Amino acid sequence: MRIGILGSGLMGGKLGTIFARAGHDVTFSYARTRQKLTRLAHQAQGNARAGTPADAARDADALLLAVHWSRIEDVLAQTGDLSGKLILTCSLPMNEANTALVIAHTSSGAEVLARKLPKARVVSAFNTVPSEVLFGVFESRANPPRPSLVYCGDDAPAKAIAAQLIRDSGFDPVDSGPLHIARYTEPFALLIAQLAYETGAGPELAYRFERFVS
Amino acid sequence: MRIGILGSGLMGGKLGTIFARAGHDVTFSYARTRQKLTRLAHQAQGNARAGTPADAARDADALLLAVHWSRIEDVLAQTGDLSGKLILTCSLPMNEANTALVIAHTSSGAEVLARKLPKARVVSAFNTVPSEVLFGVFESRANPPRPSLVYCGDDAPAKAIAAQLIRDSGFDPVDSGPLHIARYTEPFALLIAQLAYETGAGPELAYRFERFVS
Repeated sequence: MRIGILGSGLMGGKLGTIFARAGHDVTFSYARTRQKLTRLAHQAQGNARAGTPADAARDADALLLAVHWSRIEDVLAQTGDLSGKLILTCSLPMNEANTALVIAHTSSGAEVLARKLPKARVVSAFNTVPSEVLFGVFESRANPPRPSLVYCGDDAPAKAIAAQLIRDSGFDPVDSGPLHIARYTEPFALLIAQLAYETGAGPELAYRFERFVS
Repeated sequence: MRIGILGSGLMGGKLGTIFARAGHDVTFSYARTRQKLTRLAHQAQGNARAGTPADAARDADALLLAVHWSRIEDVLAQTGDLSGKLILTCSLPMNEANTALVIAHTSSGAEVLARKLPKARVVSAFNTVPSEVLFGVFESRANPPRPSLVYCGDDAPAKAIAAQLIRDSGFDPVDSGPLHIARYTEPFALLIAQLAYETGAGPELAYRFERFVS
């Protein structure tokens, strides 16, 4: 698959690297410097390159949106037309200080994004684990059981692609329903962040859903 | 420990039974009928009895609040003074139709409850798993690894008691910080509910946090 990374920071940089190592064709875009993008592409050791957001979007089978919420308008202005594109968003609607969600329970970042892009197909994924765990999970992908990763969206074919990417990253994809479920997955992401960064347990945190039948 | 159950429905009935089987002294209160309370107390096969909310609150080391959000005022009016009491709440602030949280990201049900009861010590716990999984987890408690259960609150001694009850129920307690973290754990509970009831995976769902170090 051709995958464009919009926002090559902690999440986008690592996920792009993982997608490349899993055999996908990756274009990194939108970092602070062009050098960072070139370095990411080089270090990904796969079929990866640096480019602009428009390069990343062109012919992409999936676009990973991994910018800070405050940069959404800016990066979208640089991608060109996104009609029909699969946009995998892990951008949480955080305020500038990264201390709180700016969108309440009556909506979610994913839904607001989908309304901004009525012709695109938005899937929310990859926002419920810290970037620090990604390589550890990927490297453990041959040793079951895998950790879970929730995703949600309204377009079934787009969700199937998202699930494949999640699987390629070493996680077990968990379909949590329509896009409005992001109202729950986004706060869940903040709970994970709290556990990862504020409790001393260490940031390499993932989660797994398990069944216990009496 | 003496534990009072305020709201002996799906969650309260099962958790009270588990607490009794774990060796605690349990008073079931606030069900639709007195018969249900008597049956629960009998079936708990431990040190358990039926009573009023005031009975449940009297001398309790911990009170489990497990009523529907719309019943909070009603049950609290029947408990008498709760100064200094540990209140373990698993009541999510749901609307009457049980379709949405009625309290937005700028607050949480646990915080609203704590403001209603300024002299009590509120810990939010047991609201992030479906009642259907409780017996399965309890019966598996000797077979590690245990599933996680998040709890949060502002009073350290109260949280230590909550952690013990969580442990007694077969879960691994995960301290997720101050009470305002309920803004995240409550929506997380709705995510779990979505996975348990809406996706066909079955309601006996729990979760476990795991670390993956690269």
